[in-house]
Amino acid sequence: MSNKIKVGIIGGAGYTGGETIRLLINHPQVELVFVHSRSNAGNPLYEAHPDLEGDTDLKFTDSLQHKVDVIFLCLGHGESKKFLQDNPIDASISVIDLSQDFRLGESLPGREFVYGLPELNREAIKKSKNVANPGCFATAIQLGLLPLAKSNALKEVFATGITGSTGAGQKLQDTTHFTWRANNISAYKTLTHQHLKEINRSLKQLQPAFAAPINFIPWRGDFTRGIFVSSVITTDRSLEELKKLYQDFYAGHPFAVVTDGTVDLKQVVNTNKCLIGLEKEGDKVVVHTAIDNLLKGASGQAVQNMNLMFGLEETTGVRLKSIVF
Amino acid sequence: MSNKIKVGIIGGAGYTGGETIRLLINHPQVELVFVHSRSNAGNPLYEAHPDLEGDTDLKFTDSLQHKVDVIFLCLGHGESKKFLQDNPIDASISVIDLSQDFRLGESLPGREFVYGLPELNREAIKKSKNVANPGCFATAIQLGLLPLAKSNALKEVFATGITGSTGAGQKLQDTTHFTWRANNISAYKTLTHQHLKEINRSLKQLQPAFAAPINFIPWRGDFTRGIFVSSVITTDRSLEELKKLYQDFYAGHPFAVVTDGTVDLKQVVNTNKCLIGLEKEGDKVVVHTAIDNLLKGASGQAVQNMNLMFGLEETTGVRLKSIVF
Amino acid sequence: MSNKIKVGIIGGAGYTGGETIRLLINHPQVELVFVHSRSNAGNPLYEAHPDLEGDTDLKFTDSLQHKVDVIFLCLGHGESKKFLQDNPIDASISVIDLSQDFRLGESLPGREFVYGLPELNREAIKKSKNVANPGCFATAIQLGLLPLAKSNALKEVFATGITGSTGAGQKLQDTTHFTWRANNISAYKTLTHQHLKEINRSLKQLQPAFAAPINFIPWRGDFTRGIFVSSVITTDRSLEELKKLYQDFYAGHPFAVVTDGTVDLKQVVNTNKCLIGLEKEGDKVVVHTAIDNLLKGASGQAVQNMNLMFGLEETTGVRLKSIVF
Amino acid sequence: MSNKIKVGIIGGAGYTGGETIRLLINHPQVELVFVHSRSNAGNPLYEAHPDLEGDTDLKFTDSLQHKVDVIFLCLGHGESKKFLQDNPIDASISVIDLSQDFRLGESLPGREFVYGLPELNREAIKKSKNVANPGCFATAIQLGLLPLAKSNALKEVFATGITGSTGAGQKLQDTTHFTWRANNISAYKTLTHQHLKEINRSLKQLQPAFAAPINFIPWRGDFTRGIFVSSVITTDRSLEELKKLYQDFYAGHPFAVVTDGTVDLKQVVNTNKCLIGLEKEGDKVVVHTAIDNLLKGASGQAVQNMNLMFGLEETTGVRLKSIVF
Repeated sequence: MSNKIKVGIIGGAGYTGGETIRLLINHPQVELVFVHSRSNAGNPLYEAHPDLEGDTDLKFTDSLQHKVDVIFLCLGHGESKKFLQDNPIDASISVIDLSQDFRLGESLPGREFVYGLPELNREAIKKSKNVANPGCFATAIQLGLLPLAKSNALKEVFATGITGSTGAGQKLQDTTHFTWRANNISAYKTLTHQHLKEINRSLKQLQPAFAAPINFIPWRGDFTRGIFVSSVITTDRSLEELKKLYQDFYAGHPFAVVTDGTVDLKQVVNTNKCLIGLEKEGDKVVVHTAIDNLLKGASGQAVQNMNLMFGLEETTGVRLKSIVF
Repeated sequence: MSNKIKVGIIGGAGYTGGETIRLLINHPQVELVFVHSRSNAGNPLYEAHPDLEGDTDLKFTDSLQHKVDVIFLCLGHGESKKFLQDNPIDASISVIDLSQDFRLGESLPGREFVYGLPELNREAIKKSKNVANPGCFATAIQLGLLPLAKSNALKEVFATGITGSTGAGQKLQDTTHFTWRANNISAYKTLTHQHLKEINRSLKQLQPAFAAPINFIPWRGDFTRGIFVSSVITTDRSLEELKKLYQDFYAGHPFAVVTDGTVDLKQVVNTNKCLIGLEKEGDKVVVHTAIDNLLKGASGQAVQNMNLMFGLEETTGVRLKSIVF
Repeated sequence: MSNKIKVGIIGGAGYTGGETIRLLINHPQVELVFVHSRSNAGNPLYEAHPDLEGDTDLKFTDSLQHKVDVIFLCLGHGESKKFLQDNPIDASISVIDLSQDFRLGESLPGREFVYGLPELNREAIKKSKNVANPGCFATAIQLGLLPLAKSNALKEVFATGITGSTGAGQKLQDTTHFTWRANNISAYKTLTHQHLKEINRSLKQLQPAFAAPINFIPWRGDFTRGIFVSSVITTDRSLEELKKLYQDFYAGHPFAVVTDGTVDLKQVVNTNKCLIGLEKEGDKVVVHTAIDNLLKGASGQAVQNMNLMFGLEETTGVRLKSIVF
Repeated sequence: MSNKIKVGIIGGAGYTGGETIRLLINHPQVELVFVHSRSNAGNPLYEAHPDLEGDTDLKFTDSLQHKVDVIFLCLGHGESKKFLQDNPIDASISVIDLSQDFRLGESLPGREFVYGLPELNREAIKKSKNVANPGCFATAIQLGLLPLAKSNALKEVFATGITGSTGAGQKLQDTTHFTWRANNISAYKTLTHQHLKEINRSLKQLQPAFAAPINFIPWRGDFTRGIFVSSVITTDRSLEELKKLYQDFYAGHPFAVVTDGTVDLKQVVNTNKCLIGLEKEGDKVVVHTAIDNLLKGASGQAVQNMNLMFGLEETTGVRLKSIVF
């Protein structure tokens, strides 16, 4: 066990904290040293995450332990920055932040963050000690657009996406009341979703002149896990050219799967994969992408980033059995 | 409109209040005079019940109007009694209470309540001015057992029932969080459900010597509306005898349907019906019953009772289109 | 009963046939004379539609009865035309066809069809003896666009819609297998849905010069009933102007509800309403519309049309209690 | 890779075949040599199991390869026996059969089968070359009753269980039509489920005099994966005694988790665990058990058995991340 990666988790009682725990307790190259949660300190992890009963007897702690190699920050937006400011973490410890606090180039003294989308920034991530893990919708949308941006072919985008209830977090609220959400569909944050900023930033990294709008309508779906997005873009390239573009772009990226088949959401639920499908009609290409919002959209991608940062095979511990059905 | 039944609703912002409104605004013999809700006073009904937008412009009020023929109490348990004690209601006004406050024979000065299960007490309901509307599980279980009790054949019962999330009410709580409840099943109040008291009371009304336990396990289902119960009883009667017993008992009762087909929950969702099916194997009879917990298990039955109390045809305004699918 | 509308249904065993039955047996001005189904002839309706047990003892017939005022054709696409050609129906009998056979101006000798969208063609429907009932997606999309077309403001449309499984009909198929569809989302007929033709036809009726594409992506949803569509259009009109445009257009149309609140699908499920909501951001307006695909999208609209054709109040028998939850 | 277990799968296109593939491609001690399917021969596995795209490029074959250590038979009931009779398999190759063909002590010349419930027969499984994998309901019910049988305390059982749609297999049928099954509950095979035979056999292995009936009512649930069972038994033992009985019985069995918390189905979905909870009221104990029907109820248990047969740690490759939400 001596040369395993020693990991600490901050904010282990929430959804992304729980998923990170679930991945790391089965990760062959990780020793999960501590899970920090002020409100749950002293309780076994399985009190907050009952499915872990029988899997681990580890308890939450409220004291930071510093003999770790990397810390995952599974905190609410705004809290990660505050945590790092309030709690001096040794410079030798890597940080993977799952909040949105450092996704737009923000930094702290001694801590420059790389935007942790491996399909865009793999080499930078490998060299980085600080990674800002992308947002869930941001991941699904970007992976559907990056190859077009890479070839300077991206124009105005019309995208509709649907997300599971876990995207709304753990807190009880009207829009996650079962009675309301079951069999229901509704729109929210129409054209104003906060992830548009990080999406635009990534697209401009590849196509600096890109200035057209991403018109994005998010919907709330009546399922718990997953994001499905269909994006429409005007282009004169043929479907074959486009498929080649996408296949070339994602060659060697194990979790971005360009399929000739149909994309359905459940193919990726409980996995770290992003499934990408293309259709063309007239001068419009439609790109469908699907991810699990808690895995490729959060904790799975965070572990993928950890693997890259520590020189492991990218897929270690994140080749997961899908729910399929 | 002059000879319509004038109705007031107390507690109109909750689930049973909302369902009662939905039934009464389409009831051909009813004038809905007022809907009382302290917290929503002044707002249109459709602010609390958005599906009513376009159907009615009526507003909630916080003042009691007394020129009505009947009041529906759609309040929490314990609140109905308090309401009647605190607010003097003219003796000429009938009361239909949807709480459990008067189901076990409780009364107030000048107000004796009849237990409002029409298939058991139709004649008494017709003559009564005060009706205690039964509980949802109580309705589903009793309708599966009453014919056996009528013929003194009821013995120990083993029943399992499953209920939709609306049974847990409007309040946000952990067990109605979509993320938790979707695709989930769990048990609660095992062998101790509060409806057992009213069930026992009804059964003894027909089979006074009945003293065996009703072993009832309620489950939380991953759907919003409906109750399905399977009850097992030991009996030496043949399936044919049993079917005749049930058919005879429910002859002339329009909402209790004894079927030779299979019972599936959705056949009754959004209706006021109770579907009853019988199977026999060895010396055990299994009775399956299904109702909509908010209709036959609450507001629908309350309107059925109103119809009886006011001499209308029992089904007026409660012949409803099922959701079917 | 003498002056009730006498109705026959052809193809009564399918989804739209069943829904039409459910509406007509409770319609106060209708006598349901016969329900035709070759494969079910002689069986009670409730063998094909078990939820109708206890509601009606009517049986399917395979012989056409001609003493009716109107016939509803609830047949598959292509079969309505064939049925009318093979079975001479007296010219005095009105026809309401739920298939797509006559939606684009097709006619038969002696039978000219009006496109049965009451919010577009109410006066023509009132005078017509033959109505082609619109498609489900077509209804939801048009009702979101007609006011813009009326004021010559419609430009290229980007729409995404999601439909319940009943939209795929009764036949067992891979995409309606519960195991596959539960918790799943997928796209189909991307940019090529067959309803685009009737949509374009209606839009040009109001805005003859309209020639821009309707880019429409349909999704399969993991629920049974309902359609939700979000459409994006570029416009320089303000949100206030747009709301007024929509409110004016739909004034006096009882089932088209322009709301200032949020649109969520379940508000309309099991009703004949179309809920319409508008949002504006920059130069883009987003119109959300929601309907029940089997009611406003099929059988409910058909009965609404019948009411208009026979001089009844438009809402008779189609003011329905929503499922709400 | 030389000393990995070499595995072949027969019947790889169905649900249990697919799940077995999903487990084995990530199993650190397994080399999946071939997947046999006559109808899919030559196609990549991901054509039948689209979620596997990007995970494996292996193709189905219709020729048996004999250089394997163990064969999983993922065939329909009746087909396993026929397969072994028609296809001579070298005596050195172990067989794990997921059908019901050998669960009641049936054997073939040279092949004696052990009933593969590790919590009952672990030592025998370790020594066996042929294992009959238990049924899904059988697993869930037995694990709730074995400790009572072990202490000769089992009496008549009243059990209700609910199963996901995957329990009904891959074939399209009326009861797995999404439109019917969503939000629905129904009973089937009341008191006559075929798994009762293997359950009785196991119980008598521990309590030879046990002759009371297991009254079992299976329900179809509106979810895809999982089984939840509540069993009621009369006993004079205290809850504390009972808990100790269960904890002792399952000590050292990693997948049978006796919990003091509540049992909810999703805690085990997509895992190989069985969660067991006890409640006592009067003289009745209620045992709740939950499993994933395709894992602990089929493929997961099969791999658990393989681990035991080949001397591996029992949990290798079957410590799975639950779906949780």
